Amino acid sequence: MAKIKIDQANDIAVERMMSARPILTGIATARDVIPNMEDNLLLHAGPPVEWEQMSGPMQGAVIGGLIFEGLVDNETDAVSMVEAGEVKFAPCHEHSSVGPMAGVTTASMKVYEVTNTTHGNVAYSNLNEGYGKVLRYGAFSDDVITKLRWMNDVLAPVLSEALVKSENGIDVRQLLSESLHMGDEGHNRNKAGSILYTAKLAPMVTKLAIDSNIASEALQFLADNALSVLNPVMAACKSMADAAHGVDGSTLMTIMARNGTELGIRISGLGDKWFTGPVGQPDGLYFPGFTAEDASGDIGDSTITETVGIGGFAMASAPAIVAFVSGTPQDAINATMEMYEITVSEHSHFTIPALNFRGTPVGVDIRKVVELGITPRINTGIAHRDAGVGQVGAGLVRPPMNVFEDALVSYAEHYGLV
Amino acid sequence: MAKIKIDQANDIAVERMMSARPILTGIATARDVIPNMEDNLLLHAGPPVEWEQMSGPMQGAVIGGLIFEGLVDNETDAVSMVEAGEVKFAPCHEHSSVGPMAGVTTASMKVYEVTNTTHGNVAYSNLNEGYGKVLRYGAFSDDVITKLRWMNDVLAPVLSEALVKSENGIDVRQLLSESLHMGDEGHNRNKAGSILYTAKLAPMVTKLAIDSNIASEALQFLADNALSVLNPVMAACKSMADAAHGVDGSTLMTIMARNGTELGIRISGLGDKWFTGPVGQPDGLYFPGFTAEDASGDIGDSTITETVGIGGFAMASAPAIVAFVSGTPQDAINATMEMYEITVSEHSHFTIPALNFRGTPVGVDIRKVVELGITPRINTGIAHRDAGVGQVGAGLVRPPMNVFEDALVSYAEHYGLV
Repeated sequence: MAKIKIDQANDIAVERMMSARPILTGIATARDVIPNMEDNLLLHAGPPVEWEQMSGPMQGAVIGGLIFEGLVDNETDAVSMVEAGEVKFAPCHEHSSVGPMAGVTTASMKVYEVTNTTHGNVAYSNLNEGYGKVLRYGAFSDDVITKLRWMNDVLAPVLSEALVKSENGIDVRQLLSESLHMGDEGHNRNKAGSILYTAKLAPMVTKLAIDSNIASEALQFLADNALSVLNPVMAACKSMADAAHGVDGSTLMTIMARNGTELGIRISGLGDKWFTGPVGQPDGLYFPGFTAEDASGDIGDSTITETVGIGGFAMASAPAIVAFVSGTPQDAINATMEMYEITVSEHSHFTIPALNFRGTPVGVDIRKVVELGITPRINTGIAHRDAGVGQVGAGLVRPPMNVFEDALVSYAEHYGLV
Repeated sequence: MAKIKIDQANDIAVERMMSARPILTGIATARDVIPNMEDNLLLHAGPPVEWEQMSGPMQGAVIGGLIFEGLVDNETDAVSMVEAGEVKFAPCHEHSSVGPMAGVTTASMKVYEVTNTTHGNVAYSNLNEGYGKVLRYGAFSDDVITKLRWMNDVLAPVLSEALVKSENGIDVRQLLSESLHMGDEGHNRNKAGSILYTAKLAPMVTKLAIDSNIASEALQFLADNALSVLNPVMAACKSMADAAHGVDGSTLMTIMARNGTELGIRISGLGDKWFTGPVGQPDGLYFPGFTAEDASGDIGDSTITETVGIGGFAMASAPAIVAFVSGTPQDAINATMEMYEITVSEHSHFTIPALNFRGTPVGVDIRKVVELGITPRINTGIAHRDAGVGQVGAGLVRPPMNVFEDALVSYAEHYGLV
């Protein structure tokens, strides 16, 4: 395939990515809406992985997921059930879904539904649990499960009914456009977005025929969690990335995701094939009492944000994030500037005031990554390496170069360039 | 007075300004709480001014204020009443208050109460009406008055009861610290602050024993108005500035305010004397259909924000504001950098991520202004020059140099330096 043809294919793919308009329309139960969901199927972050290869936080989240689902009562029984082969695993990404960190999503969990109204595809993500000891970081103690049940049985119905009342749903692309002008980068800093989300839902929540204490508790939970909006944002990004997938001849990366053991990418013009490599170790700041020795490998589907041109690619929008992930505000600017080197466009909807309202770098071209030796920048939370603990910090990481090299070799073979 | 003594006095004054901790505690009726408020007294922005000298928007707001108060039914009767000498005027600032633009505050109006819990002083401001045709920009048509009545009779009780439920009130200094990390500068851009304010009140509002449609309408009004929090912020700034006033020997500016005709300042060590000069003409961007020829002179007490080190002094925090007031993001950085030249400290609570978390320039020293020939930077809305129209744009302006020169001469005389 000639270079000009590849460029054209990438232009089509990135244009689809940018013109996708993700609308948060509702909340439903995973088994009712996620394609091919099954009761004994656990979705997880990143590329495919089996139990034995799973990192500590991923195993912890699987244990917690089985307890939440009521399939077992405790850790021992959960491990037995898995080892007896009674649990199936699949990547969220293979079921139109994404989940932060471990990303474990079970059949009974409530999920956000985000529809890309430009192209008609739908994507899903579970609800955000907030900070501290939470399932997505591999914690599964009673309080973790109790909170998940409250989220499913109390919070989700409130949000669901509020979204119904909002009639047109919530335009997540618009919300991100605003929050990028308010110090967010959309991945590790979603403070403005979460407050915007809370303020959009609040007038609807007050109208619901529900106990006022429940309404108040739900809004307080959203307002106090600076990551409330992360999961609908991730589903929105998934719907944008999926719209760019499957363009014949395109070398655009449409998935980048980590399961704590391996990072995997997919390429628009190369179908469903995963290209995987060992995850990196985030470099960042640790919570008091923890060090880099406590850290799990890089984990989570939240890199769907970088895949569509925000997160680590939009760090110049979020100078305050360096207090959380390390570095200086100039490093944040430099991170964004570097990403223009490996992307094919500047986003028409996501702009960075500090860079004279330049569009964020969007659409990673694996040719540029390999040619320049520059891998994508990722902002991320850091999980404890052991099951059952939780978050220990936040920082910066890059994917392994081999996944891009392997993808490029595969591309050359697929398109008869060798 | 020796230079070292003046420096020490200024250090004391600015330390009081920064250590003031303004808490929004409630809402009350102006006549019940504002010191020396009277039923036929209209408070207004800026230094003292009589009817004949008032700018168009100030006269319009006076007319609207009298109609709102039920003292007259129409413009003609309002003017007659004023010309008959039946209305008294006084600056908001002389009654522990501040008001944006015309700043007209009448006895029946609901006002925010903000207490500086460090030093015990209290400051007040009216409620924000949102954008468009509003009293503070000199509009007084029926729809303007109807909205003011809804704000007084419906909105204010909701906010008041929600604040009671919040128990500890709202820490406005903390809110500003956060919003300066979210792209606000606290004067012309209060988008993040207003959303934070809405999200803080929402869980309380849902608990009130009121009609759910009213609760919803109140929250929607707050969420849709990117200036909702401006008025409590201004009252908070007033409480900080007042705390710095009256330090013997200090050359710190503790008030800067405009009535549309004159700008006036007060100095910490010079008691209640105003130093005034003609207002400047803002240089900015105009709404479609308007030009600089439509603009009123600079108006409003909102420069209390610049007085305490935010607003035009914190523009580096708010690169997105240049789309509203004109200029480039680099201009916004330059504006803040210049203000370090004429201030005595860097704020211990308000920091700017893009400048490596440096504190905002705070505490204008009139000696530096005169010596360097650099006047304070002001971000401002622009009113139409005629009564009854409203806002026509937003931009940047500076005070006249003579007020600082006059104040310095007066200082020299007062302290026997000449």
